[in-house]
Amino acid sequence: MSSPSSSTTPTLATALTSIASDLGVLEEKIREQASYFDTDLEEYVTYACGSSGKRLRPALAFLAGGATGTIRSEHRTLALILELIHVASLVHDDIMDGAQLRRERPTLNAKWGNLLTVLLGDVLFAHALRLAMDFSQSNWCRRIADAAIGVCSGEMLQTQRRFDGELSLEDYYRIVEMKTGSLFAIACELGASFNEVQPEVVTALKNYGTHIGIAYQILDDCIDLTGEEKKVGKTLGTDLLGGKFTLPILMLLHSASQQEKEQVHQLLLEEKADRSQRLLVMLNNQGALLAAKREAEKFLNQAEASLTILPESEYRKGLHDIATYLRQLL
Amino acid sequence: MSSPSSSTTPTLATALTSIASDLGVLEEKIREQASYFDTDLEEYVTYACGSSGKRLRPALAFLAGGATGTIRSEHRTLALILELIHVASLVHDDIMDGAQLRRERPTLNAKWGNLLTVLLGDVLFAHALRLAMDFSQSNWCRRIADAAIGVCSGEMLQTQRRFDGELSLEDYYRIVEMKTGSLFAIACELGASFNEVQPEVVTALKNYGTHIGIAYQILDDCIDLTGEEKKVGKTLGTDLLGGKFTLPILMLLHSASQQEKEQVHQLLLEEKADRSQRLLVMLNNQGALLAAKREAEKFLNQAEASLTILPESEYRKGLHDIATYLRQLL
Repeated sequence: MSSPSSSTTPTLATALTSIASDLGVLEEKIREQASYFDTDLEEYVTYACGSSGKRLRPALAFLAGGATGTIRSEHRTLALILELIHVASLVHDDIMDGAQLRRERPTLNAKWGNLLTVLLGDVLFAHALRLAMDFSQSNWCRRIADAAIGVCSGEMLQTQRRFDGELSLEDYYRIVEMKTGSLFAIACELGASFNEVQPEVVTALKNYGTHIGIAYQILDDCIDLTGEEKKVGKTLGTDLLGGKFTLPILMLLHSASQQEKEQVHQLLLEEKADRSQRLLVMLNNQGALLAAKREAEKFLNQAEASLTILPESEYRKGLHDIATYLRQLL
Repeated sequence: MSSPSSSTTPTLATALTSIASDLGVLEEKIREQASYFDTDLEEYVTYACGSSGKRLRPALAFLAGGATGTIRSEHRTLALILELIHVASLVHDDIMDGAQLRRERPTLNAKWGNLLTVLLGDVLFAHALRLAMDFSQSNWCRRIADAAIGVCSGEMLQTQRRFDGELSLEDYYRIVEMKTGSLFAIACELGASFNEVQPEVVTALKNYGTHIGIAYQILDDCIDLTGEEKKVGKTLGTDLLGGKFTLPILMLLHSASQQEKEQVHQLLLEEKADRSQRLLVMLNNQGALLAAKREAEKFLNQAEASLTILPESEYRKGLHDIATYLRQLL
């Protein structure tokens, strides 16, 4: 199926080998989207869509398609729609985080201010749903809208619970499943549905997507605390600054004594320059980072277990490799 | 058809008499929408939808339906969708304007901050398009999405051209037709389409909607300069503050000498408390307000002329009365 070296240490590129040409065509399609907008607005759309994201959601749609049958024109449209919804949500996310850097470039709000950025997110969002309306089955379109509503609702719940040290793990997972799991899940679910496979196969792939999505979010949580901006290519530490209690912080709070809890809260409210470093020491000492990573691993295991229903193929292997790739980053 | 007194001085209420019960049912439907969201988010949706707007776009959908045949369940769904898109756009509009007051209540951003407000607009927007996906004809759904994209694109163009004294009247009208005309037009267009009438009737109603929308926006432009906050129920003067060159200002700039132009620009850049009053004096002296109102009248005349294709009915009269009502406010 593949060389031993790639199966022991798959990179994202090796995980996506089987769909490399589909991802190439997607890049062209993404570039074309600006032409659907008013001429005076093309520049913004081009900039928003032009960064070289990992295109993970499209990749899942293609792999799920290949793993359950054929990669069809519907998969190509789905891949485009999901990436546009993701880009739209990032555009609004960066306003909220006040982030200046994303994918190694100035964010849209840093470049053109919040006013234009709010509207650009709106128009990308509406354009993506408009594309979904061309599917032959209106139910596919509705499922995508539901996923988009899930993303926004998850983000809202997260914002509502900012600086809330009482956030339960249950609520954290509910939020993450909505805000990140939704798009990962629909990529895999519809990727299978387009091939008209058995409902249990669709469900298995949907579960794979949800679990990969949750693991990916936990990983992102950890990187925001431990990563290096230059390597990651985006402003870090914004979760803390915005009062987002991510999994490592929640793990720390849940394992801490009353006195330690108060220390953590005080640290979170401080605006001192060395706050992140002091917090990182506590997160490491208390094993909270490790505990968060172990949780992510559990979800990756669950994701992999969902794949057993699929026949062996290079696409199924790709789905496996994505889980392995994420495990390595933990 | 109606008493002479109401035909000489129609209020909005008399214009809407024939569809009063439909508008009543709409209010109930709007109230129900919160239940479609996550329990923890209902409060925000209820607040956003709960203000007593004029529901003009729904009214046009109902009147167009009645004037071309029957008011069907599709009209009720359309009315709900258009009001939700409108509310979503107001929610984002208030962030951009920094407005504190809307429909006599604190704006959402004044109450919960920009972060939640951006997301609430998104989720209302997505929910509205999700409802459109239940129409039996996917083309209706696509037309609504196109109108929503028009609204956002118009707002983007307006934002792009802030503080641009060179904005042409042509560009102003292009922007206004998109940002306000789109929803008014689709209300009337689909209101007719649902009754499967001749294409020329659909086009006539679409034109009526576009022209009423443009006239309504010019009126809104004037009120932002001349109105009283207590009477209007929203923060005024935000257009000027945000650098929106509305029609009265453009009329002033276009009729002014070079020296006067410089005076106006200086006045627009000043942040003095009496700026609005001094500008108002100039707008009146130069006849710019009157010129803007005459433009609005032209659009109202065009709107009324589109109605001649329709058979006489209380609904056609309602559409006429809306034009007359707006003319009175000028």
